[in-house]
Amino acid sequence: MSRWQPNARDRLKQAALELFVEVGFAEATVPQITARAGLTTRTFFRHFADKREVLFAGEEELPARVAKLMADAPAHLDPMAVIVEGLNSVADTLFAGGRDFMRTRRAVIQSDEGLRERELRKLSTLSDAIRQGFVDRGVDELTAVLSAQVAVTIFSVGIGRWLDQDGDLPLTHFVRDTLDALRSVTAGRP
Amino acid sequence: MSRWQPNARDRLKQAALELFVEVGFAEATVPQITARAGLTTRTFFRHFADKREVLFAGEEELPARVAKLMADAPAHLDPMAVIVEGLNSVADTLFAGGRDFMRTRRAVIQSDEGLRERELRKLSTLSDAIRQGFVDRGVDELTAVLSAQVAVTIFSVGIGRWLDQDGDLPLTHFVRDTLDALRSVTAGRP
Repeated sequence: MSRWQPNARDRLKQAALELFVEVGFAEATVPQITARAGLTTRTFFRHFADKREVLFAGEEELPARVAKLMADAPAHLDPMAVIVEGLNSVADTLFAGGRDFMRTRRAVIQSDEGLRERELRKLSTLSDAIRQGFVDRGVDELTAVLSAQVAVTIFSVGIGRWLDQDGDLPLTHFVRDTLDALRSVTAGRP
Repeated sequence: MSRWQPNARDRLKQAALELFVEVGFAEATVPQITARAGLTTRTFFRHFADKREVLFAGEEELPARVAKLMADAPAHLDPMAVIVEGLNSVADTLFAGGRDFMRTRRAVIQSDEGLRERELRKLSTLSDAIRQGFVDRGVDELTAVLSAQVAVTIFSVGIGRWLDQDGDLPLTHFVRDTLDALRSVTAGRP
């Protein structure tokens, strides 16, 4: 077997996800994943620290990416504009794996207590990064923390609705629509 | 030592919190807590499952209490009114321990990764209970999930501001003021 494996990372992700669905996340082992992908465990560990990280790979870069996006946004933009433009800008690349992969990933995460906690921690880290980004833009602390919470809410609820839809509308549609719904809720006239 | 200990529960909580601050949460042991409180470990385990639960005691009842409050709220109230009245109604009793205890508790939780995760899980469970409460009131799913997120945001940010203040304003003031600030943020004119 050659050391270089075309698309090894994607094959491992796909094999892992299939296995998590079939036998459950807790029961799945790395040798089972690599056998299904036709790759070695050495290859697996070159790409992922453990089986859990297959589901969260790449997300450790998100806070730094958010910080850069927010620092680069024009100074005159108000927080909601920064949020919506920022979410739209990451949406394209973040979900390149496609909706089917994301839907299955969500189901796997919801099936396991430890994975749900990992997902909550991820959103909390993201919220902290956004809050700090607003503080760095000179926004007061209260507005910064509330804007960060709003961003994470629109992000997670918007993604959920994008995954749930029967049609084929882009994520940007659901980000915008979720913000409108949130405005109605907070205005007290839902 | 008699089996009945006046205020055993409060003495254990106070001793545990002092010890967590002095030696760190991870290092503190149940025998150290009970020695400081002048009580036995048997007494400790009659009140708490482990040292962590000293910080989260009573909160397992919160979802059921939220469900009851929401079911009892007048049918004509819109979600924001249900949220604000609900938070005000639990505020009085939830923080009977006082602000000093709550401030120290917050510092201990922020110092430990596992405790931060436990706190996130608590807020997530609370959010689920509120969402379900709105669905049971006949609110559509999107409004229900967003209202629940708004409630948890106002709740956690409002408590943080109540703890941070130099003055002596009631929690209800910060709940209301945080909602106003959130309205400004979502309206896009902060």
